[in-house]
Amino acid sequence: MNHKQIHIKKFGGTSVGSIEKIEQVADRIAKDKLLGQNPLVVVSAMSGETNRLISLATQIAPSCRGQAYDMLLASGEQVSVALLALALEKRNIKATPLLAHQVGIKTDSLFSRARIQEINTKQIKTCLKMNHIPLVAGFQGVTNGNTITTLGRGGSDTTAVALAVAFKQSECEIFTDVPKIYTADPRLIKKATQIPKLSFEEMMEMSSLGSQVLHCRSVEIAAKYKIKIHVRSTFEQTEGTWILPKEEFMENPLVSAVTHDRNTVIIKMYPVPSGTEFIANLFTMLAEKHISVDIISQSYHKEGQRLAFSITAEDLEAAKKIIYEIIEQKKVHIIEGLAKLSIVGVGMANHPGVAARFFKVLNKIGVDMHLVTTSEIKISAIIDKKYLSEAAQAIHEEFILIY
Amino acid sequence: MNHKQIHIKKFGGTSVGSIEKIEQVADRIAKDKLLGQNPLVVVSAMSGETNRLISLATQIAPSCRGQAYDMLLASGEQVSVALLALALEKRNIKATPLLAHQVGIKTDSLFSRARIQEINTKQIKTCLKMNHIPLVAGFQGVTNGNTITTLGRGGSDTTAVALAVAFKQSECEIFTDVPKIYTADPRLIKKATQIPKLSFEEMMEMSSLGSQVLHCRSVEIAAKYKIKIHVRSTFEQTEGTWILPKEEFMENPLVSAVTHDRNTVIIKMYPVPSGTEFIANLFTMLAEKHISVDIISQSYHKEGQRLAFSITAEDLEAAKKIIYEIIEQKKVHIIEGLAKLSIVGVGMANHPGVAARFFKVLNKIGVDMHLVTTSEIKISAIIDKKYLSEAAQAIHEEFILIY
Repeated sequence: MNHKQIHIKKFGGTSVGSIEKIEQVADRIAKDKLLGQNPLVVVSAMSGETNRLISLATQIAPSCRGQAYDMLLASGEQVSVALLALALEKRNIKATPLLAHQVGIKTDSLFSRARIQEINTKQIKTCLKMNHIPLVAGFQGVTNGNTITTLGRGGSDTTAVALAVAFKQSECEIFTDVPKIYTADPRLIKKATQIPKLSFEEMMEMSSLGSQVLHCRSVEIAAKYKIKIHVRSTFEQTEGTWILPKEEFMENPLVSAVTHDRNTVIIKMYPVPSGTEFIANLFTMLAEKHISVDIISQSYHKEGQRLAFSITAEDLEAAKKIIYEIIEQKKVHIIEGLAKLSIVGVGMANHPGVAARFFKVLNKIGVDMHLVTTSEIKISAIIDKKYLSEAAQAIHEEFILIY
Repeated sequence: MNHKQIHIKKFGGTSVGSIEKIEQVADRIAKDKLLGQNPLVVVSAMSGETNRLISLATQIAPSCRGQAYDMLLASGEQVSVALLALALEKRNIKATPLLAHQVGIKTDSLFSRARIQEINTKQIKTCLKMNHIPLVAGFQGVTNGNTITTLGRGGSDTTAVALAVAFKQSECEIFTDVPKIYTADPRLIKKATQIPKLSFEEMMEMSSLGSQVLHCRSVEIAAKYKIKIHVRSTFEQTEGTWILPKEEFMENPLVSAVTHDRNTVIIKMYPVPSGTEFIANLFTMLAEKHISVDIISQSYHKEGQRLAFSITAEDLEAAKKIIYEIIEQKKVHIIEGLAKLSIVGVGMANHPGVAARFFKVLNKIGVDMHLVTTSEIKISAIIDKKYLSEAAQAIHEEFILIY
């Protein structure tokens, strides 16, 4: 590689969640610098800060989004990046805090879920040349007109990976408060174990299935540009979990992880007009309001067409408004209090019968599935939330603990 | 005037100190807009927010200043300007929140006390043309290199007045939590009364003497460009206090206001080398560390030269470091627990004997003065803090209540 190695390090909200932790992060960066590294640091807002800002906005206008909302949220990273700069200065390490408009992190203008289009490397290169550590505020960008945008919850991961692309690096470190990614949420499943490595595909599925380790878009970009992500603890020196291209695995476990998402709602409609026009219109209208539809089930019966689909609970009110415009309320049935339980593993693609085993486990403990979906490397089922813990334990026993 | 009238309105921290108050400010702006006004709004940080940010910084590095510190503090106005935009949007009023880098408020690079050098009017004009209300984050600026600076405590006033200059306006409204400026701090002096108008000169003296109504620099600029400042209540419709050119006064009261400052410290030195070299060096070194010296007294005695001067208590530690480098500690005597009591009035210039009356009042109640200074329109005395309340009452009785 012709490019000088730069060590891209992203510190998440829990890693900078207090002054004490910011000092620890500064110590870690100082140590890495002393060891000869060339750090380029990305920082999230202090944990709790983004929620505090959202709560202020919600008190004024519950469903507000747009320019002002994104400007508000972007202030969180401005605070943490400035505080980290102060902590490094105290250690006599020159550091320059940089906001998105100063770096030139250009995005489209889709507020609250903007996508990075281009990163100007000039300002950061100037810092590095002067031997200053560039500290970049994550999560934020600017449009061509210099309006502030944000990349969506967890977007700082994407800032870090996009910087790795811009600087032609092959790796990126994501520091968090756990030493490794687990086979399941340890709060739900006590026997969850640590995963040394995952493929990009598995991580993408896990992110979109509710695992909050990495921003889904960051893994997409990493996969596209083959940037290895090292997810590791801010407060320990141990190796964490590597997210790698599939080719780097000698053998793939059948199932790498069990994930869950407690915010699922199912909307059922019966009867809906037959043909695809109604469904196409409905999903277009939902998409226009940025409501993601997850699992879809459609079936034709003699008495009429049935449609069921799942969305996250946060989108329910917005979805209802759209739905009741185009179909009578009595034809709609909403089921709340649901959770989605999934298994992910690249090994599944070559092993038929995994789905059958998955269903058998749920059947054995008497848990019904409302909707099911499968892909090459994952199986998801929507079940009643009250059974989540028991079902997740059983699935974890069946697929993970057999190794 | 050829320019279209723009109504520049600055809302201070107490006016946007809670979500409820931000809603009230939005109501007021909405009403003014309905009445045909063309508002250009400047907002301070929510009251308490700047202190919260300073406290975070101080926990890391107590005496830190510079780029990171200013970036940190500037986030306060970013939050309030965004929240006000949301509150206006809720009222179906189009508003655009603008930060210093978006407007182009250019300053020098003296962090924490930067001075505005130029304001680009283009972005704001675009907003006004689209009938959007521009909401400008006060207190902040950017250097030519786009580094964030701040203008010093109360700097949003200066942002507002500088915008009035840039847009060639003759007036500027400063909204606060009191209906008018008082002849003295009503918390200290119960009989303090409201002042309908003050001259720029008086207001400048009052600001530099510890009155926290207006940022001193804002009054300097207003005086230079003859911009009338209307200080008034956010929550009432009544007229407030006008700050005007001296020429607009038919007759000037002898004394307009009694002000005080509780943070005074006197540093005495004896003996110091005779001649001016020592003193010139000392004050240069203090100025380099941005320590303002207030009242200076110097006297020559047979036994040696005596020097005494006052500074604010916040600067004491930094001043000591400098002083003990150039003079032995045993020659230095520091007096803490002092307050500065002053009277201000343009009428004084034409009425000799005011100082004599001032001293006589203090003498009558048995209060000694440590240092005294007078100008054409003010008299200041440094006294023990424990006598401040009694002395201020007596002075207020003597000079203000006679009308």
